[in-house]
Amino acid sequence: MSNSKEIIISIDAMGGDLGPQAAIDGAIIASKKVSNVKFIFFGNKKKIDFYIKKKKFKNIYNIVDTSQVISNETKPTDALRKYKNSSMFRAVQSVKDGKSHAIVSSGNTGALMVISTVLMKTIKGISRPAIASMFPTMKSKTVMLDLGANIECDLKNILDFAILGKTFSKTLLNINKPKIGLLNVGSEVLKGNQIVQLAAKKLQMEKNINFYGFIEGNDIPKGLVDVVVTDGFTGNIALKTAEGTADLYTSYLKSSFKDNLYSKFAFIISLPVLKSLWNRVNPGKYNGAMFLGLNGIVVKSHGRSDAYGFANAISVAYDLSINNFNEKIISDIKKLFK
Amino acid sequence: MSNSKEIIISIDAMGGDLGPQAAIDGAIIASKKVSNVKFIFFGNKKKIDFYIKKKKFKNIYNIVDTSQVISNETKPTDALRKYKNSSMFRAVQSVKDGKSHAIVSSGNTGALMVISTVLMKTIKGISRPAIASMFPTMKSKTVMLDLGANIECDLKNILDFAILGKTFSKTLLNINKPKIGLLNVGSEVLKGNQIVQLAAKKLQMEKNINFYGFIEGNDIPKGLVDVVVTDGFTGNIALKTAEGTADLYTSYLKSSFKDNLYSKFAFIISLPVLKSLWNRVNPGKYNGAMFLGLNGIVVKSHGRSDAYGFANAISVAYDLSINNFNEKIISDIKKLFK
Repeated sequence: MSNSKEIIISIDAMGGDLGPQAAIDGAIIASKKVSNVKFIFFGNKKKIDFYIKKKKFKNIYNIVDTSQVISNETKPTDALRKYKNSSMFRAVQSVKDGKSHAIVSSGNTGALMVISTVLMKTIKGISRPAIASMFPTMKSKTVMLDLGANIECDLKNILDFAILGKTFSKTLLNINKPKIGLLNVGSEVLKGNQIVQLAAKKLQMEKNINFYGFIEGNDIPKGLVDVVVTDGFTGNIALKTAEGTADLYTSYLKSSFKDNLYSKFAFIISLPVLKSLWNRVNPGKYNGAMFLGLNGIVVKSHGRSDAYGFANAISVAYDLSINNFNEKIISDIKKLFK
Repeated sequence: MSNSKEIIISIDAMGGDLGPQAAIDGAIIASKKVSNVKFIFFGNKKKIDFYIKKKKFKNIYNIVDTSQVISNETKPTDALRKYKNSSMFRAVQSVKDGKSHAIVSSGNTGALMVISTVLMKTIKGISRPAIASMFPTMKSKTVMLDLGANIECDLKNILDFAILGKTFSKTLLNINKPKIGLLNVGSEVLKGNQIVQLAAKKLQMEKNINFYGFIEGNDIPKGLVDVVVTDGFTGNIALKTAEGTADLYTSYLKSSFKDNLYSKFAFIISLPVLKSLWNRVNPGKYNGAMFLGLNGIVVKSHGRSDAYGFANAISVAYDLSINNFNEKIISDIKKLFK
């Protein structure tokens, strides 16, 4: 028996393209990696019950029967007003009510963001939540935010993202003085729009922030910094362009090996090596986008994620919960930019 | 003997990390691909003369001795005011004075943009020039603009980019009705900031533009559209993130093949296949960023480009000149968004 505190995670079992099975199988995989975790599943109770019994899964805290399902086509504002008995809404509500520590969903990102923000509210001192995710680099990985929650950002938003990213990097990745980089079109001090220039000045002056300075798009995969801060419009497009480029490379790689008889032979020889590579380089495969800055832990798994992807997202939710991430944010807010 | 009109291209021989040799060798390679091209070289006449004689290069129109060199550290505004006898300034001036059709430089991008814009001015009807480049896709390639000339863009700028991109795609890539996509954080009509929403409405209404709608970052490498329109801040970061991701993939690929004895063997077998791939996927290797919208053809070669890279940039300048690109822009401006 472990002495660690019990972590309860709410699972929206009806999101995702693969339905409850990926979520349940993901929970089973995740529960083998950590001790003292329990799950509340939200969704069609009959289906969930059936599948859980088949798997003889024990780490169940509760199953909550919900009648509605938010699809990817549901408008976020409709999700908030008209889907109060959906698996997603009820799962978020359970965290807000203190019945669980975190929620994991692979459903509609916009709906999850709106419901989470309205129910949980932002942490005092943070004006808007951010979407953060891991980005693979030549050194290891970096955390990048915002990835699309905030299309237009003011100075305060950018500084909030720096705090959230710093605390994340320190708490979850054990980096003592994470290097914070601000995404820009050039590394020179005079480059970029007014917001990034103002933000750079503020970050430079804050002695508790290890500010690296401006970085460019190609510096992200180099691993120059531990935290990449940017507005949600730029961050979303950078992340998705990287995902698309990785897919393009894989596609070119596969077609190069089909050119002629020799290359087909080389492909057969190389397949074991290549297989280990496909997913490693694609930031889209680093499962678990975190919604940071809310009074509750919210992790979004990829809509297409399988059980292993879902398990990764659960692990992130577990790590954020067991490490009291939000308490650390609250303490950092009090110290920074005063 | 060909009957095509003679194209004269001004070469800034002192830009680039490799100096005049890459520029001269590039001109030699390029001159073998097309007929009736001549070059004016700007730079240290002694060095240029020496190298050209060694190579017995014939397509010389003139060599202009210049005493100053603009480095990558020179501020663009200083370049404009204090470097009037530099190879770059004089080469741009020669196009402006009608002594040549186009200029190619691998020097300081910001300086080249400022000098070109001030000397040549924008085409009547275009408010700001844009940097455009090719992006590799799963289908073939797409042209993307702006890539950094304009950090903050208004509606007019975005619509100008659509005209420039459309005409480029039609004239240089022979695409009859190029599909124009507007880069955004989602494909839904209501997504994004005010500028992209207004621009989408205008583009939708213009019957001479084949507007595809919004596209996301991952849609660029998919080749969903022929022209990707975006502001210079986002475009620069998207392009550089793609370059960095391609480099990261190559680095992972190489290290995967070093894991163990088997993978080392597989690497030797696969090397001929892989070598053809390294550069193909990296948008940074598609040489020749075009400055579109000016009263003159300006092509920027990559600072690190070798003779082959420089030759590609010259080919782009030649194609833009021989196809009367700017005359077509002027005619398109009169037809669109009236």
